[in-house]
Amino acid sequence: MILCGGAGSRLWPVSREQHPKPFIKMPDGQSLLYKTMARGKDLPGLSGLMLVSNYELLFKIKDELNLFSSPPAARVILEPFGRNTAPAIVAAALRIAAMGSSEEIMLVLPADHLINDEQAFHHACKEARVLAEKGRLVTFGIKPHYPETGYGYIEASGQRVMRFVEKPNSAVAQQYVASGNFFWNSGMFCFSARSILEAFAKHCPEVLAAVRACLEVSSTSDWLGLEATTLDSDSFALAPDISIDYAIMEKSSDIAMVAAAFDWNDIGSWESLCRLYSSDDNGNQLHGQAVLHNVHNCYIRSEDRVVGAVGVDDLLVVDTADALLVAHKSAAQDVKSLYMRLKEAKHSVCQHRRTGRPWGAYTVLEEGPGFKIKRIEVNPGASLSLQRHAKRSEHWVVVAGVATVTKGEDTFTVRVNESTYISPQQKHRLQNAGNELLTIIEVQSGSYLGEDDIERFDDIYQRI
Amino acid sequence: MILCGGAGSRLWPVSREQHPKPFIKMPDGQSLLYKTMARGKDLPGLSGLMLVSNYELLFKIKDELNLFSSPPAARVILEPFGRNTAPAIVAAALRIAAMGSSEEIMLVLPADHLINDEQAFHHACKEARVLAEKGRLVTFGIKPHYPETGYGYIEASGQRVMRFVEKPNSAVAQQYVASGNFFWNSGMFCFSARSILEAFAKHCPEVLAAVRACLEVSSTSDWLGLEATTLDSDSFALAPDISIDYAIMEKSSDIAMVAAAFDWNDIGSWESLCRLYSSDDNGNQLHGQAVLHNVHNCYIRSEDRVVGAVGVDDLLVVDTADALLVAHKSAAQDVKSLYMRLKEAKHSVCQHRRTGRPWGAYTVLEEGPGFKIKRIEVNPGASLSLQRHAKRSEHWVVVAGVATVTKGEDTFTVRVNESTYISPQQKHRLQNAGNELLTIIEVQSGSYLGEDDIERFDDIYQRI
Repeated sequence: MILCGGAGSRLWPVSREQHPKPFIKMPDGQSLLYKTMARGKDLPGLSGLMLVSNYELLFKIKDELNLFSSPPAARVILEPFGRNTAPAIVAAALRIAAMGSSEEIMLVLPADHLINDEQAFHHACKEARVLAEKGRLVTFGIKPHYPETGYGYIEASGQRVMRFVEKPNSAVAQQYVASGNFFWNSGMFCFSARSILEAFAKHCPEVLAAVRACLEVSSTSDWLGLEATTLDSDSFALAPDISIDYAIMEKSSDIAMVAAAFDWNDIGSWESLCRLYSSDDNGNQLHGQAVLHNVHNCYIRSEDRVVGAVGVDDLLVVDTADALLVAHKSAAQDVKSLYMRLKEAKHSVCQHRRTGRPWGAYTVLEEGPGFKIKRIEVNPGASLSLQRHAKRSEHWVVVAGVATVTKGEDTFTVRVNESTYISPQQKHRLQNAGNELLTIIEVQSGSYLGEDDIERFDDIYQRI
Repeated sequence: MILCGGAGSRLWPVSREQHPKPFIKMPDGQSLLYKTMARGKDLPGLSGLMLVSNYELLFKIKDELNLFSSPPAARVILEPFGRNTAPAIVAAALRIAAMGSSEEIMLVLPADHLINDEQAFHHACKEARVLAEKGRLVTFGIKPHYPETGYGYIEASGQRVMRFVEKPNSAVAQQYVASGNFFWNSGMFCFSARSILEAFAKHCPEVLAAVRACLEVSSTSDWLGLEATTLDSDSFALAPDISIDYAIMEKSSDIAMVAAAFDWNDIGSWESLCRLYSSDDNGNQLHGQAVLHNVHNCYIRSEDRVVGAVGVDDLLVVDTADALLVAHKSAAQDVKSLYMRLKEAKHSVCQHRRTGRPWGAYTVLEEGPGFKIKRIEVNPGASLSLQRHAKRSEHWVVVAGVATVTKGEDTFTVRVNESTYISPQQKHRLQNAGNELLTIIEVQSGSYLGEDDIERFDDIYQRI
């Protein structure tokens, strides 16, 4: 079971609401979600992956699954909004029990952790499985290699958890590391569906009742070959917003811990992400075009702008199409508070300008009074919905590939260097029937250009 | 006489090759060139302005002149490339002498200096004029108010220059300031055309001979009401690249100095520019959208991106469409070395993405394989040349104003939300016959999209 949500607000401006941490690419080009699925996929005895996420991320999950030459069997549970880990885990356990297999062992993995040592991971999972099969609730403790104050700790005696402790201050963290009995709380768990449901019945019945009621009115259907359970919004809202640590782990007196021997990085900030990259002689890590003069120990990441840096040390510079971050490495954790302020203000930079869609993506290149310009990329074989706009017209110029355009009753092709015009109220559809990516430049014109001016009549991605 | 050239490389990325320091806007929205012209315009007895610049800046100068309700009489001399101040001043003096007025007093002002105290400026100019009318070569010394190491100094005894000295080190600069006899060399001068030409004949005859020969083969013509002398390239190349300080001032034993009582700022770096802006309680100066957390004493300037800053002090952050600068304030002078490296590499960010044209401007919004998107803004009454492209076609969508389009033999109007298509080899022209700004989005398509694929047949700005 993979928990694939969360904002990843500390990795703004690369992470955004619809592009959270699990989808951020690591130095090798793979996303954390892909790596998590790859890790789970090869576990012996795997019956399938179950992901808990939300609708906005569904097609991105599908894209990540499609990267596997043989995609693992996967189901998804779609939350209408995040309610922390307890309701998500209960929903997954109930779905598994409903499929008639409550003895099935669940391995709960956050989708945004990096673990490189596959062998040690498999070894720890095997140890956890043995305990889970005996009915135990199992957590994974990571041997701390420095006194991190940003994590919770587990005090253990052998395989037995003595207590969970909150993020310590620096002095306490040093004691913990020195003692040898304290482990980082990794947020990974292992248990049978039956055991965890029984624990909820005993320690936190409100969550169990609310999620059970929610599932009774929620629907499960096929979404392009992926079984998707869409949790009902009104009833899910009644589930308490609580973590599994608070709901169960800290209340139960019988939690087991596997001391994990693998490396582990929760990519909790730009500072921890940049440590994964190799540095040049001046300690700098550069991604994109940068020109430096007397610069040391800086991480500079730019999508397409040139970054000039002069006389600076220990900075994080992260440049994206619409937002720029300049932070001192020692303050990397505080990026979250910036993000929260932007989110409170409902600022547009909480979203990326490039918006993924099941059929491809669109990027807003420029907006001005009465017009908006988009680059629209349609994947081979993909199709936008049959749609109509009340208030805007659209001018399309094909710059790569071949477009199949439906206007009213007519369907025709538009090739590179050709254009067509969609008037307001005209039913239309854009398809890519070819084998290469279709790119069109769309100039929208009208007094209202909001994304919500759309009426869909038919959609192969069931978005009606 | 206004010296309007120079790269302003220390103010990159706002200053660029075709948008140098004189055109950069000060906090009140006026450019340094405008301020310089305004300062000169009101001097008693002014017969006219003479600007030395280059062709690429000509229409920008014209735009600045047009900002005056009654534009001052102005002539321009266009250099094919910069040859430092001596040839520029000689060219101006020779033009003035050729107009039959070699007794005319020239006040030489760099276009990129900021002086706020108009009254003290007028007073100093009056004093200089009296000396110049007696045949003296006059320089302006600025009373130093701190031991700046970035300027040259003048040692004076009353109105008499004892010697010019190069940029001193910090200890020497402190002695200079303490002595009371040392002044900053402002780069402003005053003399009669005859006196300076005689001085060149005596101390630096090579420059005089080369520029005189150049003017003999150069042409003077009217450019939209502005008298423009275009210096011949081959012969101007023979003029030595030398400053008036080296050529004359340091060699002549009879230079007068006016001790200027006005404030003076050569805006030599971002650090000196940002000191003109007022700060908030944390010492920060913000222009554009910025979100800060624990940030002090920073200058953050952004055109349209959101800048998030965390835990940083004393930084200059200057963000433009295609380039970003992050510099420590103490290293502001070193921005020049970045710029020089970019220039050496002929990097595109030595130019702005928005390119001014006599008829308005165009901005490249995006370039990709086989296509380029521009926003084209045409001023009321303006017209692009009648032109033809061999290799590209152009799709135009009007998003503001009304376009008058000529295609082959036809001329017709294209209104907001209408579009038209120009095929390769088709003669065409875009005009704005209306009263409001015309904005079109142009999608170019073709295998070659260089700006040099243009053949001009008729141009109201004489660019054929």
